[in-house]
Amino acid sequence: MYTTDKDRMTEKLTSFSKFGDLGNGGITRLSLSAPALEARGEFKRRAEALGMDVVTDDIGNMYATLPGDEPGLKRIVIGSHLDSVRSGGNYDGVYGVLSGLEAVETVVAQKIPHRHPLTVMVWTNEEGARFEPAMMCSGIVLGKFEKEKMFAVVERDGSVTFGEALAASGWAGDPENRINPDDYLCYFEPHIEQGPVLEEEGLEIGLVEGVVGMVNYDIILEGVSSHAGTTPQSYRKDALRAASKVILDLWDKLGALDKRLVFTTGQILCKPNVHTIVPSYVKFTLDSRHQDMGVLAQVVEIIENLPKEVYGCKLSYEEHWGRKTVAFNDKMTGFIADATEGLGYTYKRMYSGAGHDAQYVSEMLPAVMLFIPSKDGLSHTVVEYSSPDQTWHGANVLLNAMLKADAEMD
Amino acid sequence: MYTTDKDRMTEKLTSFSKFGDLGNGGITRLSLSAPALEARGEFKRRAEALGMDVVTDDIGNMYATLPGDEPGLKRIVIGSHLDSVRSGGNYDGVYGVLSGLEAVETVVAQKIPHRHPLTVMVWTNEEGARFEPAMMCSGIVLGKFEKEKMFAVVERDGSVTFGEALAASGWAGDPENRINPDDYLCYFEPHIEQGPVLEEEGLEIGLVEGVVGMVNYDIILEGVSSHAGTTPQSYRKDALRAASKVILDLWDKLGALDKRLVFTTGQILCKPNVHTIVPSYVKFTLDSRHQDMGVLAQVVEIIENLPKEVYGCKLSYEEHWGRKTVAFNDKMTGFIADATEGLGYTYKRMYSGAGHDAQYVSEMLPAVMLFIPSKDGLSHTVVEYSSPDQTWHGANVLLNAMLKADAEMD
Repeated sequence: MYTTDKDRMTEKLTSFSKFGDLGNGGITRLSLSAPALEARGEFKRRAEALGMDVVTDDIGNMYATLPGDEPGLKRIVIGSHLDSVRSGGNYDGVYGVLSGLEAVETVVAQKIPHRHPLTVMVWTNEEGARFEPAMMCSGIVLGKFEKEKMFAVVERDGSVTFGEALAASGWAGDPENRINPDDYLCYFEPHIEQGPVLEEEGLEIGLVEGVVGMVNYDIILEGVSSHAGTTPQSYRKDALRAASKVILDLWDKLGALDKRLVFTTGQILCKPNVHTIVPSYVKFTLDSRHQDMGVLAQVVEIIENLPKEVYGCKLSYEEHWGRKTVAFNDKMTGFIADATEGLGYTYKRMYSGAGHDAQYVSEMLPAVMLFIPSKDGLSHTVVEYSSPDQTWHGANVLLNAMLKADAEMD
Repeated sequence: MYTTDKDRMTEKLTSFSKFGDLGNGGITRLSLSAPALEARGEFKRRAEALGMDVVTDDIGNMYATLPGDEPGLKRIVIGSHLDSVRSGGNYDGVYGVLSGLEAVETVVAQKIPHRHPLTVMVWTNEEGARFEPAMMCSGIVLGKFEKEKMFAVVERDGSVTFGEALAASGWAGDPENRINPDDYLCYFEPHIEQGPVLEEEGLEIGLVEGVVGMVNYDIILEGVSSHAGTTPQSYRKDALRAASKVILDLWDKLGALDKRLVFTTGQILCKPNVHTIVPSYVKFTLDSRHQDMGVLAQVVEIIENLPKEVYGCKLSYEEHWGRKTVAFNDKMTGFIADATEGLGYTYKRMYSGAGHDAQYVSEMLPAVMLFIPSKDGLSHTVVEYSSPDQTWHGANVLLNAMLKADAEMD
């Protein structure tokens, strides 16, 4: 088995943490913002120093390619993103890109034979924190979103469109360069777990077998606003009281389904939201995820059977969007398992609860993801952390799994 | 008994409803805004046409005075306000001013003898919808708020201070004109009920014996934000789940105290309030009111004994402000009772759940309020409504109560 260089891996992460540095351990590196463009420049400089050829496609996705030993073969690609959420951390996304770069640097430094070209790619706007939605550019490549509509998306808290920001960035390239099944062989995406399971169970690697399916609802309670001082309790139709009841009932009912089911009421809107007025309208979100679509069907049934009236308030719901469970490629998961076992690392098979570009890519290429542990399970926060050993272990698994794919696939 | 003119009363309300007309039956007439200044101009024009002398004090409160028959006597004053909340109605506040004007117009038209001067006054900024707090200018007169601090208050959604808006309005006058116990005899404030009780019980008049005491709290739940897809339910510390539990528990515990107790959780703030993130922080308000301070003490005890931890989230609370129950003057409530009975109207003795300028004025002058019914108990909304008969009945009670005070007080 080959191993990457731990210090070099750590140096990469440390160096990139200065792009968008908040001075509190975290970063804000929104897609196509000045710090994100600096990070792209640094990625290009480092890739070219390794002898890689760097191009971009028409939506700014970057592809840095090291030639393979046999001419005419398809490329093995490792993909992730360099953008972050607002007040994010130094691992989500960037770890995938930099572990890929470290794997290639090891191949170059140790002159490891490899038949196929090796590509490290950077997806534009994975987070969707500045321009919604998340996974915008893998979504465009896979036909999930229309390019014209996406280019017209206006940034949150501003007036610049995605198309304008991309044009101004100088990173828009040729549509011919888009990742495609004719030129690419298979896809790896290393990532932090963003959850507590690996750390809690003391494991080094998560072998990601797929991305869980999900459903998304808005649940709406409509009551009557009235004066806090002059309306006896018995006359009230209080939408926040009703919403509180429904939230607790959902915990009871969904919590009884399956212990791997997750569900979240993360966002709440209350109107008029004035301390002296009984709330007339509350809308809250329900996000629920499970790898077994049968369990999600039970979630849907529970939503559909919610009472139509709660404490005198009318209950309704809107289904927002969902996704089916995505299963990754068996051969690719096998490469990760072999590499992990070969290196003597502990691991578990798991599903990703979060969405990743890999789920779209898996529709056109054999794809897989691997996870490394997240301290306290936290991500999308400035305290996001994985240790130098953990990031190194992940890079080692990636390197060997990539070389197995190189040997066995065509 | 004397009676006012029903058509004239209705015409007054209809005419003033054009100042800030939203075209949907309601108005937005924020304090010192252009429509509020138009309403002031119309009030002055109408008062002067009745032979009243109109002056303002240094905070823009207006005083229109009809001379009395005996020189040197103190003034009887009817006070209310012309400003509204955003998307408010045509009765809250303005009814008090215009029923006062109708009572005086009746005195003039019917040449009713009256010993004391009769003043109709307009309080500046009762609602606090543009410049917080509510009841700002009666509060300044009674020493509840410092004038300098209030003049520095910046409008909501803008940059103009109260002091700047007042100076620009042209309605700032002489501080010597402020209402005071040397020059004024007693204070009446007619108002809509803003609650459903009079309508539900089929009564014509509410004899307001006082304003209920109240307590105001923020209740805070602090959990841990984590990813909606990757955090098993058992690891979660969800602040919105915890807040929902506390809201329902408060309904159970406070609801058991006394049926006249009202309590409202009207405002909620959730962070980060993103549908894919478990809420880490929820703050909601609790407003509770009762005429018996002993019952409010029990409310405070319940708040103080809330558990310190709910579903793994830390619970804390902040007391914001409160007010003691204000009891109006017995002699003044007697005048209202006598007038109502003399006119053959039905009534009930009640407490105001809402705050009114009268509660401050009652600290320096014998004061009282009277209520007329509110359709469906609604106020602070464009559908606020009291019928022509109801507004007329209230003006008749006011006229006769005022004349009783004129006869019996000195």
